Amino acid sequence: MQAARLHEYTDEMSSALSIDEIDRPTVTDPTTLLIEIDGAGWCQTDNHVIEGMWAEYVSQELPMTLGHENAGTVVEVGDGVTTVMEGDQVICHPVRTCGVCRSCRLGEDMYCENLAFPGLSTDGGFAEYLLTNERSVITLPDGVDSAEIAPHADAGITAYHAVKKATTELVPGSTAVIIGVGGLGHIGVQCLLAMSAATVVAVDIKQDALDLAERLGVDHTINSSDEALVSAIDSITDGTGATQVLDFVGSDETTATGPDIVASGGDYHVVGYGGHVHQPAQALVDGELAYRGTLVGRYTELQELMALVDRGDVELHTTHYPLAEINTVAEKLEHREIEGRAVITPNG
Amino acid sequence: MQAARLHEYTDEMSSALSIDEIDRPTVTDPTTLLIEIDGAGWCQTDNHVIEGMWAEYVSQELPMTLGHENAGTVVEVGDGVTTVMEGDQVICHPVRTCGVCRSCRLGEDMYCENLAFPGLSTDGGFAEYLLTNERSVITLPDGVDSAEIAPHADAGITAYHAVKKATTELVPGSTAVIIGVGGLGHIGVQCLLAMSAATVVAVDIKQDALDLAERLGVDHTINSSDEALVSAIDSITDGTGATQVLDFVGSDETTATGPDIVASGGDYHVVGYGGHVHQPAQALVDGELAYRGTLVGRYTELQELMALVDRGDVELHTTHYPLAEINTVAEKLEHREIEGRAVITPNG
Amino acid sequence: MQAARLHEYTDEMSSALSIDEIDRPTVTDPTTLLIEIDGAGWCQTDNHVIEGMWAEYVSQELPMTLGHENAGTVVEVGDGVTTVMEGDQVICHPVRTCGVCRSCRLGEDMYCENLAFPGLSTDGGFAEYLLTNERSVITLPDGVDSAEIAPHADAGITAYHAVKKATTELVPGSTAVIIGVGGLGHIGVQCLLAMSAATVVAVDIKQDALDLAERLGVDHTINSSDEALVSAIDSITDGTGATQVLDFVGSDETTATGPDIVASGGDYHVVGYGGHVHQPAQALVDGELAYRGTLVGRYTELQELMALVDRGDVELHTTHYPLAEINTVAEKLEHREIEGRAVITPNG
Amino acid sequence: MQAARLHEYTDEMSSALSIDEIDRPTVTDPTTLLIEIDGAGWCQTDNHVIEGMWAEYVSQELPMTLGHENAGTVVEVGDGVTTVMEGDQVICHPVRTCGVCRSCRLGEDMYCENLAFPGLSTDGGFAEYLLTNERSVITLPDGVDSAEIAPHADAGITAYHAVKKATTELVPGSTAVIIGVGGLGHIGVQCLLAMSAATVVAVDIKQDALDLAERLGVDHTINSSDEALVSAIDSITDGTGATQVLDFVGSDETTATGPDIVASGGDYHVVGYGGHVHQPAQALVDGELAYRGTLVGRYTELQELMALVDRGDVELHTTHYPLAEINTVAEKLEHREIEGRAVITPNG
Repeated sequence: MQAARLHEYTDEMSSALSIDEIDRPTVTDPTTLLIEIDGAGWCQTDNHVIEGMWAEYVSQELPMTLGHENAGTVVEVGDGVTTVMEGDQVICHPVRTCGVCRSCRLGEDMYCENLAFPGLSTDGGFAEYLLTNERSVITLPDGVDSAEIAPHADAGITAYHAVKKATTELVPGSTAVIIGVGGLGHIGVQCLLAMSAATVVAVDIKQDALDLAERLGVDHTINSSDEALVSAIDSITDGTGATQVLDFVGSDETTATGPDIVASGGDYHVVGYGGHVHQPAQALVDGELAYRGTLVGRYTELQELMALVDRGDVELHTTHYPLAEINTVAEKLEHREIEGRAVITPNG
Repeated sequence: MQAARLHEYTDEMSSALSIDEIDRPTVTDPTTLLIEIDGAGWCQTDNHVIEGMWAEYVSQELPMTLGHENAGTVVEVGDGVTTVMEGDQVICHPVRTCGVCRSCRLGEDMYCENLAFPGLSTDGGFAEYLLTNERSVITLPDGVDSAEIAPHADAGITAYHAVKKATTELVPGSTAVIIGVGGLGHIGVQCLLAMSAATVVAVDIKQDALDLAERLGVDHTINSSDEALVSAIDSITDGTGATQVLDFVGSDETTATGPDIVASGGDYHVVGYGGHVHQPAQALVDGELAYRGTLVGRYTELQELMALVDRGDVELHTTHYPLAEINTVAEKLEHREIEGRAVITPNG
Repeated sequence: MQAARLHEYTDEMSSALSIDEIDRPTVTDPTTLLIEIDGAGWCQTDNHVIEGMWAEYVSQELPMTLGHENAGTVVEVGDGVTTVMEGDQVICHPVRTCGVCRSCRLGEDMYCENLAFPGLSTDGGFAEYLLTNERSVITLPDGVDSAEIAPHADAGITAYHAVKKATTELVPGSTAVIIGVGGLGHIGVQCLLAMSAATVVAVDIKQDALDLAERLGVDHTINSSDEALVSAIDSITDGTGATQVLDFVGSDETTATGPDIVASGGDYHVVGYGGHVHQPAQALVDGELAYRGTLVGRYTELQELMALVDRGDVELHTTHYPLAEINTVAEKLEHREIEGRAVITPNG
Repeated sequence: MQAARLHEYTDEMSSALSIDEIDRPTVTDPTTLLIEIDGAGWCQTDNHVIEGMWAEYVSQELPMTLGHENAGTVVEVGDGVTTVMEGDQVICHPVRTCGVCRSCRLGEDMYCENLAFPGLSTDGGFAEYLLTNERSVITLPDGVDSAEIAPHADAGITAYHAVKKATTELVPGSTAVIIGVGGLGHIGVQCLLAMSAATVVAVDIKQDALDLAERLGVDHTINSSDEALVSAIDSITDGTGATQVLDFVGSDETTATGPDIVASGGDYHVVGYGGHVHQPAQALVDGELAYRGTLVGRYTELQELMALVDRGDVELHTTHYPLAEINTVAEKLEHREIEGRAVITPNG
């Protein structure tokens, strides 16, 4: 089968992955299953993997097939699999978990002690077929376009998870700020509007992104290349700051604004991760500010997101590309030229 | 009356404050009251105020009397005061709050929109008398030595507040680490032992501090000048890391250990604040790590701490000094030569 | 001034209250203020007070002016009042609190140890003027019709408070049931839709009420006089039951359904209170079911509700009546002939 | 093998179970395993099962082997089992769960949609051997006496779970009441003392039980056959009531005290379940009181309890009996003549 694989870390996106002919994986373990990929979303994290940014955090053996936002059709199941069958359309939670460690027993899939992360630590879904296990798949209802929905597997669940954490601290009258209305951010905006009655502020440097945010229903938009972010939020919140900030960019510049835009006792959620968090400890103490990293989400949260999608509360803006154009997609995202989310369709 | 006042910011502790003769304050507003100071604890924050570290965070007009850990005897009350009377012994919550802003109505005293912070933003308790208001005082039971208990007004409540936040995430079998068993840390250790059944680890670079921690009952001590902190915690936690870390030091070196010692999804509480938090955003994302600043605590938390003290669960280790020796105290603390907590007794 | 007063407990609503001429109250305490009533909502609790149902729960001295859903215009303020002034339009939190007991300091207004409850334990707002205190009032923005908004003072905040408790347990995909879409319930429905993305089911025995619920946007309606409640909810939830049930009726019949309609680990919130909760303890144990009483709400929750109203998320359906027709209103509510909420306008 | 089985529901404990010779079960499914029983605790629920009280709540096919508090030694494992092996000593979480339904994925073992409950819905551990699955067992550390520890499998985890729920609402200065210091209650007392710094009050009608509570370290004991419970709690709490009440008896008489002994906003946890909860809805509304059923606990909570045991924080008081004396045990418990917990040792 064909698969888009990374052979060495590089900053050169235009030739990052090569389309190799490799063996189609087979089901050996009774709890595994094989999926024909209908769609696999391209993510900023794919660029980061290519650049080698994850090499010190997870174990990676090259060459490796990328792709961690996968949806497709089950074509083969192990004989211990009881909840899905051949022909089912499924979306894949991004990690394969063991189900028996304490984290799994707590429902904390991302902290599984025996976790495998297709596309990050093992072969992923930019290929005709993907081998995964029963614990990672959620059956889709009839009529759902699995290729269209693929980016929810990681972009969606990550945005949803961050928003869910934030909503526990939001009440009517408090303000939530979303920085970066891109692939994740535009999902985050929709989750936030559906799940809370807070005042929602969208921040971006591209007017297109802000226009989208406005159409989705946010209360305020701030173009931070045109006007000062801090004073704009100050004015919206009568000087008290935002209770929750969700930063889908995570650059040095965005994280630096934390102490100036977060209300006393509030949270600055770090979702994007290109840059650094750098603050005097005193700046965290003074307003009892927290910088909280956020990592994908639980399997059950992907179920919840699917329920939101089913209600019509969250729409994805996607464009489809054949496997052959995958490096073009890598390059476009690097230059912020992708609106919404790009989906690779290896069998399309 | 005599008061120890800061006339200009300085790094020279041996002459930091001058003992001035100033007017004794008077009760004018119906909700205020005057206290004769029995004891006022010296705090690392006093050194930071002297150095000018708070000038950019709060409004300070010099000269100003320092001292924000105050306990004493009520000597005069405004005619609107109903819950305390002359002769009552009281401990002072560190801030004076308005009681009518939304933060006050939520019980979030530290976020009061009209807050005054004696010793930080207005005259404090290193003086014979202190003017404060009814909302800031808690009556002490008979038999309590108010001078002895004074450091709970800030050191105690700050440690308690941080520990209380941490305990919501601790279960039997999880590990909590306290970095720095000094003035605040030795209170934190006792609160943690009383309020949770987690495994408690104390970290310090002084053996005396660790000996104290051991006597108080911690499960493990680590002398981080002798052995590597990361591998020691790794070994105690079987490689999973500590669920909650409470850093009472807050230096560049201590905060840097966060990603290596905190378990997935855990918290690094920043209580001390000499240094910086500096991390790649990715380090927060990877283990879903949070750096959470912590600022003093609520009035009701000081009540809860007094209940702990009353149960005999928390003991303070203090030494008393007359007002005249206040700069000696400042200098000693700067050189980490104070065991437990120093208390100034201006009327002693 | 004129005031509608209860002289003795009775089941005869048509002559329950008498319109008496009594002295207009005056501001004596520095923190009190006098309000000219623009509107005072009539509540099922008023019927219960008339019947004597509250006599064993609170201290009542008859004759007493009823009315605990009050909004109006400030006409006189004590000299300690700083946050409102004559001419301000305000809505009154239903109780007058002391501000210094531990409950008040925690923000738990309803548990104030020195609480007075106008219309329940002291003279209320079915009168031309009401004496209350600064802590109980929230200033309304310009352009708000204070008479129109009065029922939020109790019906609104009670519904909001119950819904807020429920939403902490709701995620997309879980089901919330509201039993009784009357004066409180129709507010509850709107709060739930604004603050969560759960599936919302409205239950009533009147088709009009269910039509209103449908217009407000609920996902399902059940007319429990036409179809069996238990099987209808079973079918909506695929047999798992509802995560949260909010019962605004509180009759023997409704509370009896708890074990059959609540999902494992879910909550049955008792808001209405005509009847009894009667269950074998085993029925609570078997599904880890909770019956949770809910009592009005916090002052800060009334602020939050006002923010919801300001966003246009909650509309009241009201009808205005002069003071002279108050017994007619009492009778109509007893016969369930009031749509939405009746508001008494003593100065209208 | 020998097994103590129920052939028909009866109130006659002296002949309730018959010791039958039945086939030893065999491992067929790859995730199951066979345990030689070292000890199986006798529980009040066994009496309730014999009386037929569970027949309407779960599906039961008689004859059935009772026994749901099991610990033993693994003697055979299915070929899909990876985390335990022959010879391991294990304690069994009381239910066998599927691991793939949403409840399991949330970590909510007790709500598993495909749950089997040995001793309640299928054959249990009052037998030489028990068939269970990998998900239900926790390996014990060397040196633990598995027979001695067996009652933690249900009595322990149930007490721990209830206490854990209660501790989230307890702070120093608040009061927790435990009603019934028997098999579950004496574990609950120890968990509460280890995990909180609240004031702990033990209530029983037997002086022996109260003496045990006192030795364990509670702050107050009340013999409710000698003194009035309500006034005793009133006096301990200065009239505010207890924040959390844990009722391990669950009779009509105990649950009736709720509104009189629980503080405003507090919880009455129903753990024991012989009787009824019967209250006017108004009694729940008035003090915002909740009656919360509590059902066993999560697998991860049994891990946490094992950590508590390992710390020496919880001791069991047990007596061992051979299988042949099982009806004597049933009868003794019915007459409240068992101190602590009886453990059946079928291979002893």
